[in-house]
Amino acid sequence: MKVLVVGASGTIGQAVVKELSPRHEVIQASRSSATHPVDITQPGSIAALFKKVGPVDAVVAAVGDIHFGPLTEMTGEQFRLGLNSKLMGQVELVLQGQKYLNDGGSFTLTSGIAVDAFIRQIVNASAVNRALEGFAMGAAIELGRGQRINVVSPTVLTESLPVYGPYFIGFESVPAARVALAYARSVDGAGTGEVFRVW
Amino acid sequence: MKVLVVGASGTIGQAVVKELSPRHEVIQASRSSATHPVDITQPGSIAALFKKVGPVDAVVAAVGDIHFGPLTEMTGEQFRLGLNSKLMGQVELVLQGQKYLNDGGSFTLTSGIAVDAFIRQIVNASAVNRALEGFAMGAAIELGRGQRINVVSPTVLTESLPVYGPYFIGFESVPAARVALAYARSVDGAGTGEVFRVW
Repeated sequence: MKVLVVGASGTIGQAVVKELSPRHEVIQASRSSATHPVDITQPGSIAALFKKVGPVDAVVAAVGDIHFGPLTEMTGEQFRLGLNSKLMGQVELVLQGQKYLNDGGSFTLTSGIAVDAFIRQIVNASAVNRALEGFAMGAAIELGRGQRINVVSPTVLTESLPVYGPYFIGFESVPAARVALAYARSVDGAGTGEVFRVW
Repeated sequence: MKVLVVGASGTIGQAVVKELSPRHEVIQASRSSATHPVDITQPGSIAALFKKVGPVDAVVAAVGDIHFGPLTEMTGEQFRLGLNSKLMGQVELVLQGQKYLNDGGSFTLTSGIAVDAFIRQIVNASAVNRALEGFAMGAAIELGRGQRINVVSPTVLTESLPVYGPYFIGFESVPAARVALAYARSVDGAGTGEVFRVW
């Protein structure tokens, strides 16, 4: 299969590339890529990426920023960070990508444990991640030509503990390589409308 | 209690005003209100409303537009309608309103059945409604001074069947007066982080 990984330079993205490369042609897109640069907050940038890459059998989105910070000081502008980046970036990849995705191809999006955990300062993630899962559930019944869509919801990565560990005290971390297996289940499997929790 | 109802001229809003008025001082805000006009897509308009109304004991948000339409033809711009209106409008009411909400006061937001129903053409609602519930869950553990937040998730209203009935074939409708009871449970009750489903 020809698989487009958006966010390929990130911790999850690198692990997904490593997991998929032995059996698939993997195209690596990221903000800093020399060959396939993309800024997911710019719909035109996503359009240019698909135009360059052409038809694909799978799109993996492991990408997007969210705002971390206390609710009592949060501004609407800060909250919009997650909407414009992690949510709309991935939604645009699907809305635009459905025209480039081959019959039976798959989208795999990335949410996160914040949907179901009571953790302070992650209200932006909680909203964005739930929205992504709601979007995928709704999209799964409407995509055409046998196209599929699933979501991977990882807990905090072992590799990310130096940065995010303080938010996730008491949570077991998982190595990115284990999270990458869930993307493989989505890409190589047959499911749609599924949320793969890696907790 | 002094209760601010945003979206007071809508089908749900009118029913909420009728339910709360016998025992509370209800301030009615809406896009078309002569005394308390508000455009929830404009943060400055929400700021002006709170400045005029002053401290309140409860804020009810029964407001916000979403995009209805097939996924296969949907643009990012159309999807953003629900984010800018129903989602960010209600989020802004909380982010800004927490400074005006008295100790122990409550926010009551409005999501909808689309979070859990497989219905075509409502992917925007599915994402937005889940985001609102995720936001409220996250906010419930961070609000200060005993402030509370809950969400009412109604199914299709009996009064709205002439417009939305075709999307909800096979679903039981509920009269707005019954939905209004859930808002009363939130405003007059003691719960926080709850989703009141009226299905």
